[in-house]
Amino acid sequence: MELLKNRILKDGKVSEGGILKVDSFLNHQIDVALYNEIGKEFKRRFADEKINKILTIEASGIGIACVTAQYFDVPVVFAKKSKSKNLDGDVYTASVESYTHKNTNQVIVSKKFLSKEDNILIIDDFLAKGKALLGLIEIIKQSGASIAGAGIVIEKGFQTGGKIIRDMGIKLESLAIIESMSDTGLTFRE
Amino acid sequence: MELLKNRILKDGKVSEGGILKVDSFLNHQIDVALYNEIGKEFKRRFADEKINKILTIEASGIGIACVTAQYFDVPVVFAKKSKSKNLDGDVYTASVESYTHKNTNQVIVSKKFLSKEDNILIIDDFLAKGKALLGLIEIIKQSGASIAGAGIVIEKGFQTGGKIIRDMGIKLESLAIIESMSDTGLTFRE
Repeated sequence: MELLKNRILKDGKVSEGGILKVDSFLNHQIDVALYNEIGKEFKRRFADEKINKILTIEASGIGIACVTAQYFDVPVVFAKKSKSKNLDGDVYTASVESYTHKNTNQVIVSKKFLSKEDNILIIDDFLAKGKALLGLIEIIKQSGASIAGAGIVIEKGFQTGGKIIRDMGIKLESLAIIESMSDTGLTFRE
Repeated sequence: MELLKNRILKDGKVSEGGILKVDSFLNHQIDVALYNEIGKEFKRRFADEKINKILTIEASGIGIACVTAQYFDVPVVFAKKSKSKNLDGDVYTASVESYTHKNTNQVIVSKKFLSKEDNILIIDDFLAKGKALLGLIEIIKQSGASIAGAGIVIEKGFQTGGKIIRDMGIKLESLAIIESMSDTGLTFRE
């Protein structure tokens, strides 16, 4: 997606420890017009799938999923990262290690909102080692729902997550795949 | 907002400890069509304000803020609940006690994304004791930005937050204000 890649080149910053900061437009301050273009592109890439629900994970996946859901005309479910007393005990759960925050969360989805009749599109902002995505896949498998695919805004192609997910036979569409990244710049996979 | 009140009556559930569960359409599973109607209603209620940015707080405010932002044609900034290594040290910060989760978080916004030129609309899903909203107001004050108002989806009118915020002279628009709530039902403020 050229619009996105150009925006990453213009406003993204690589900081110490291999973190790509896109917080001026993607995951702290949000350019909602860009989210709309992202949503349209996900719809184009998954146009052939009969998706009836989008699953994402808090926090930064939620906005992208909601704007994207407008193009699919389906509800969003977001997985929560800690057990809230607002949730029933009746939940699907998976453990997810966070690369960014260096901790492990229990990720939960109420059993009310996923079932074997569902065909799910997973949406998230980043894919690196794939921990969050694997957690969501685990939760979908527990529910017996089908996985239509996964739509990711930015994939770090030099990390292992993309290969792991594609090797599972899951249709993975990343709108920008970063091939290499350093203080002096970044390149995208063609 | 009648559509919202009817939906709360139809699908909301009051559980032990005075928690109103609206997780089937508002803050776990999300009816994005309803979010659109909520966004339009916020635009109607703040039509006279020259808003240039929406501020919300993770996690469940983000989706509502993003869909609402489409009607204002402005970016969203969401406050984060813990210090991520993706953020600069250069942040505005406030302490926020969570009624739901029974803990206290540091809430932070990068100084890059709020300034004294901004006129901010705050958006959130719930208002009860007002802790989250007061944290966001504190952060806006640190930045020198103006507060155009606050748009809340569901206010618990029998708790103190609404009065505190209105007594500060802030324009507070809640789309449904719950007057009373028990196992046997709930009533709205007219």
